[in-house]
Amino acid sequence: MNAIDLNSFFKPQQIAIIGASSSPGKIGYTVLSNLLQAGFQGKIFPVNPKAEAILDLPVTNRIQDLPEKLDMAVLTIPRDLVLPSLQELAEKQVRSVVIITAGFKEVGREGYHLEQEIVELAEANGIALLGPNCLGLINTSSKLNVTFAAGTPPAGNIAFFSQSGALCQAILDWAVGENIGFSSFVSLGNKAVLNEGDMLRHLGSDPETDVILGYIENVSNGQQFLDSAQAMSHKKPVLLIKSGTSAAGAKAASSHTGAIAGSDQAYDAAFEQSGIIRVKDVSTLFTLAQAFSSQPLPQGPNLAIVTNSGGPGIMTADACEGSHLNIAKLNESTIQRMREFLPSFASLYNPVDIIGDADAERYLKTIEVVLEDSNVDSLLILLTPTGSVIDQIPDLSERIAKLTKGAGKPVFVCYMGKQAVAEGQKILQQARIPCYNFPEPAIQSLEAMYRYQLWQNRTAEPIERFEVDQQAVRQLIQEVQSSTSQSGGIEIVEYQAQKILDAYRLPTPRTELAQTSDHAVRAAEAIGYPIVLKIASADISHKSDVGGVAVNLTSPEQVKKTFIEMTSRAKTMRPEAYITGCLVQEMAPKGVKEIIVGFKRDDQFGPLLMFGLGGIYVEVLKDIAFKLAPVSRNEARQMVRDIRSYMLLKGVRGEAGVDIESIVDIILRMSQFAVDFPEVSEAEFNPVLVNEEQAIVADVRMMLG
Amino acid sequence: MNAIDLNSFFKPQQIAIIGASSSPGKIGYTVLSNLLQAGFQGKIFPVNPKAEAILDLPVTNRIQDLPEKLDMAVLTIPRDLVLPSLQELAEKQVRSVVIITAGFKEVGREGYHLEQEIVELAEANGIALLGPNCLGLINTSSKLNVTFAAGTPPAGNIAFFSQSGALCQAILDWAVGENIGFSSFVSLGNKAVLNEGDMLRHLGSDPETDVILGYIENVSNGQQFLDSAQAMSHKKPVLLIKSGTSAAGAKAASSHTGAIAGSDQAYDAAFEQSGIIRVKDVSTLFTLAQAFSSQPLPQGPNLAIVTNSGGPGIMTADACEGSHLNIAKLNESTIQRMREFLPSFASLYNPVDIIGDADAERYLKTIEVVLEDSNVDSLLILLTPTGSVIDQIPDLSERIAKLTKGAGKPVFVCYMGKQAVAEGQKILQQARIPCYNFPEPAIQSLEAMYRYQLWQNRTAEPIERFEVDQQAVRQLIQEVQSSTSQSGGIEIVEYQAQKILDAYRLPTPRTELAQTSDHAVRAAEAIGYPIVLKIASADISHKSDVGGVAVNLTSPEQVKKTFIEMTSRAKTMRPEAYITGCLVQEMAPKGVKEIIVGFKRDDQFGPLLMFGLGGIYVEVLKDIAFKLAPVSRNEARQMVRDIRSYMLLKGVRGEAGVDIESIVDIILRMSQFAVDFPEVSEAEFNPVLVNEEQAIVADVRMMLG
Repeated sequence: MNAIDLNSFFKPQQIAIIGASSSPGKIGYTVLSNLLQAGFQGKIFPVNPKAEAILDLPVTNRIQDLPEKLDMAVLTIPRDLVLPSLQELAEKQVRSVVIITAGFKEVGREGYHLEQEIVELAEANGIALLGPNCLGLINTSSKLNVTFAAGTPPAGNIAFFSQSGALCQAILDWAVGENIGFSSFVSLGNKAVLNEGDMLRHLGSDPETDVILGYIENVSNGQQFLDSAQAMSHKKPVLLIKSGTSAAGAKAASSHTGAIAGSDQAYDAAFEQSGIIRVKDVSTLFTLAQAFSSQPLPQGPNLAIVTNSGGPGIMTADACEGSHLNIAKLNESTIQRMREFLPSFASLYNPVDIIGDADAERYLKTIEVVLEDSNVDSLLILLTPTGSVIDQIPDLSERIAKLTKGAGKPVFVCYMGKQAVAEGQKILQQARIPCYNFPEPAIQSLEAMYRYQLWQNRTAEPIERFEVDQQAVRQLIQEVQSSTSQSGGIEIVEYQAQKILDAYRLPTPRTELAQTSDHAVRAAEAIGYPIVLKIASADISHKSDVGGVAVNLTSPEQVKKTFIEMTSRAKTMRPEAYITGCLVQEMAPKGVKEIIVGFKRDDQFGPLLMFGLGGIYVEVLKDIAFKLAPVSRNEARQMVRDIRSYMLLKGVRGEAGVDIESIVDIILRMSQFAVDFPEVSEAEFNPVLVNEEQAIVADVRMMLG
Repeated sequence: MNAIDLNSFFKPQQIAIIGASSSPGKIGYTVLSNLLQAGFQGKIFPVNPKAEAILDLPVTNRIQDLPEKLDMAVLTIPRDLVLPSLQELAEKQVRSVVIITAGFKEVGREGYHLEQEIVELAEANGIALLGPNCLGLINTSSKLNVTFAAGTPPAGNIAFFSQSGALCQAILDWAVGENIGFSSFVSLGNKAVLNEGDMLRHLGSDPETDVILGYIENVSNGQQFLDSAQAMSHKKPVLLIKSGTSAAGAKAASSHTGAIAGSDQAYDAAFEQSGIIRVKDVSTLFTLAQAFSSQPLPQGPNLAIVTNSGGPGIMTADACEGSHLNIAKLNESTIQRMREFLPSFASLYNPVDIIGDADAERYLKTIEVVLEDSNVDSLLILLTPTGSVIDQIPDLSERIAKLTKGAGKPVFVCYMGKQAVAEGQKILQQARIPCYNFPEPAIQSLEAMYRYQLWQNRTAEPIERFEVDQQAVRQLIQEVQSSTSQSGGIEIVEYQAQKILDAYRLPTPRTELAQTSDHAVRAAEAIGYPIVLKIASADISHKSDVGGVAVNLTSPEQVKKTFIEMTSRAKTMRPEAYITGCLVQEMAPKGVKEIIVGFKRDDQFGPLLMFGLGGIYVEVLKDIAFKLAPVSRNEARQMVRDIRSYMLLKGVRGEAGVDIESIVDIILRMSQFAVDFPEVSEAEFNPVLVNEEQAIVADVRMMLG
């Protein structure tokens, strides 16, 4: 849908309601009545084969009788009439269509095929199509409400879209009750044509929208979504709920990466890398939305707290701990200024406790001084309705609004209580200062805003490209493909994969393929003892199952004897396997750490890179970092730093650290390889051996998709 | 305060208000007026030196003129009058006193001493004293409100106490607004006499209280608190906020245990072991309180979900993931029964999706069938206000209340929305069925209830006592103490600590103290090569700093040479140290895992045991389990299972596990030792070496407090 301009969709001038009804309770009635009640100023064409007038509007009896090039048609007709009606509408060159009718993809095969025909028709005619199986659409500035929900929300600067129509209904009802304003409100339904990517693209440039919210269960097109998200989340915050985290969808996997890297990890990585803020539940979604839509972003992590009571101050400091925020260290001059007017029992250090007998005047003086402190990036005002301030709360609220306006720093207020603070809260909310009953949501919001600010200010980094021998890899993959009749799940065995490592200039232990025992001895002499011997066969993937690995061989006799034993054991145990010989390999240096670098191709988002410490750390502790390829050098570095056991690599207690940049290099080459060869579904370097000086890929597994 | 009966405190018949005032705005006025407005039925004595009548009540001018043995006196007089007035009240044998006046311990040394005098006076006269520096006290059933807060909350079955008066004010205001009912509401203030332990003890037996809530910043008496908490949390749920988690209070520590085991870990362990539910913030506190106070506990983890929309169903399943709850697997018969009346597009598997056109009738039939399923321990009903049900919500709510009453299983409802569902929510809340706007709080509540149920049903286990040689340890400690002029922070060096290990029958590597190199060789021959040599000196605690450890010595020559080098190096580097000789020690077997078992004595709660895997797991990953000593065998087992890297001990990927019971044995002996010797402030076995057959304490550090 990249070609279609959505202005006629969000701001139509003429709307036909196909299936408009005069019977209250029917969807065709509710949509029309909602549109009228919303105060829509454009032209409305109720379409109904029999009626003459509905809700005082003249009725058009046939689609053929409608004018050409209408901006929008809304379909509330039985399922089997949808396709023929859409055909007629296409002939009339209607620009956008909302199909509220259900009974398509969501109910089985027949509906699925019907929906496919609708998609083809819409795409062939350039129609922006919403639904089917949706609640409809609201745009407050154009007084558009073509939903069958109850009520129109107030206008505001928050846009919301949702894949669940039920959630739309619930949130609409809730938002009307909580007086939350929206710019646009879209129920995506089956996403036959328009999807979350289109919404991001349009709403990101919509001057009426400052924050984009969404609920999705999947994305329709991973790459389009990533592109839109990345472009838009630089302009304004995008907060999404992605549900279905519990759906593992585990295919049989041939590597750790395959077993661990699920679709939810891919979503996490996609959101994080495109700057989308992933939110867990609806109430958090709106808590954050209110904060983002009303206050400036904090330019740093340092929070000041002004409170008239100790306990809530401590609870706020507790909530900061474990967040990315700091309790600001106030400047000495700030403390001096406060000393002049605060009572002697006040705590001048942050949290600034102006104690229980504080009145509005004391609050305002303190707020003014603290906000001016250059060490303070954001301010939270805590107030308990004590006797000395309880009657001044409305006045205080108005003056807080005036005082903090234009400070350029986010200010949040927490009035602890309900009844005594209700009026003050209303005043602050009208002044666009978020006000809570308890401090935790303020901290949660500020942290999200601070992290978003960091993301927004990140400079885009180019993706490096290493010089590699793609041609060699392409040839090898073709060889592997042509050697089997399988179409998927083909393993590239180690001695073939070694060639890929070489082509991508990945550091490997010196290795030679020996076809005879004498050859093996010659190779061992050339490499230098001790050496490792590994069985080489395209038909044997789990080498240790046939005793196909021997380490620490130190003499020609040992190499010769082991070669003969290993190959004949393999022949006995796997008579069907073609044994190429043995790999003779340099031993790994002592004292190295083992890491894993891998990727798995996600159906939606492409290659999902994985990094972790080997063995127990990956398997038991699940201490793993994920990112979607391609990654920049800093992103690769971030992956290394993101694991909990990073300190093990960096070096602890005087122990020397390993060469992090050599790990980064391997991640970057893995990333490039994953992008270069879409036919590789999964690859894993395991282990990669790292020490202070270098990292070596000691073993590798690869699968063709 | 264990001796004092708090009935006269919570249910006084006569109350004197010392400092009652006729000036609105004064605390002495507000307290009296609150008491009158609450409808107190007993006798009230306003005491004021000048007035004749206040709020139509006759005034007593002097305390001397009050009757004897009054149940309660409330003090709202200037600080310097508090002590003399209390003296007079003591002479009048008043039973309980509430000191609202501030200016004591919280403002510095003078106040602190004044408070001490008050404590002595109260204790000498058996007065139950609340405060000073508090908001006062409410008991709804006796229509008692002696606070200066605005408003009395409705009666209910929730009790609340708080160390922060400001939080009391905030919560009172909030609770009145949210219509949350309380049995008792207590502001503890400075806790000079009555503290959280007294509250637990009284409220635990209070028939009007079903759930106890509290906010504390510390406990006054760890042991009393633990005893009360353990006794009471078996009777009814106790939910506490303990703030100040960020206060590290790190003393210089001489071991990992010392560095890691902070006061917050001790609180966590104390709460967990005494069955207290620790809550992070006020809104969670009341969310859980409502659930606990209105529904039965679930008898198992299996939750059924009935919903009319897919999206919210998925979000609920997501919220269950990572909780201790399961999505119940419904019986085949249940599914058959539902198939008879649910439409074909409905999802009969849990979450049961009765789809968007469901009406009240369909909801009720489904609820009935699902609740009867023996695999279902709890039920969550999700409802989106769709057209087919929106007008039936009040009726549905009443019928849900009737249908589920007496089912013996907890039922929660989530009406997604606000306006359209408000009336239904009210009906459910009146019927004591928790009803939320979004599903997450329901899951959070159910999980807490399920975990509490598990705790309540746990059978108390006796603490084992091993036969040990306490006398030997006592003697050794005395020797160490008498050998130094230090009063605290004395280290028991390894070769002394070894004797303690022997006395507590802890498995250690065979060790001999050799004073000469020949002696060392003889010892090595007796133990068998290879051996370890370690410098032995009471003055050298960090042996490796002086090159005082040599491992894997395999011959007499090596032992002799190393002994001489080691002792002379130590003499050169530490001329002031007395070198006893060297320890000759058996080498650790290969392939063992290293664990740490330690304890640190917490100021409030006594010995806090710690268990973790050695090295990186403790230092970097902070993968550690804590419990307060003494622990039972099952609790010790739980510590081992609680660490994330437990699988490493249990054995992964075919690797044999270690002998868990031998670890448990060491934890139990450490526990017993920690209880037996309060003079030991900190001890750590690090490493303990474990393999399939045994665990051996290879090194030990101990400190006297």
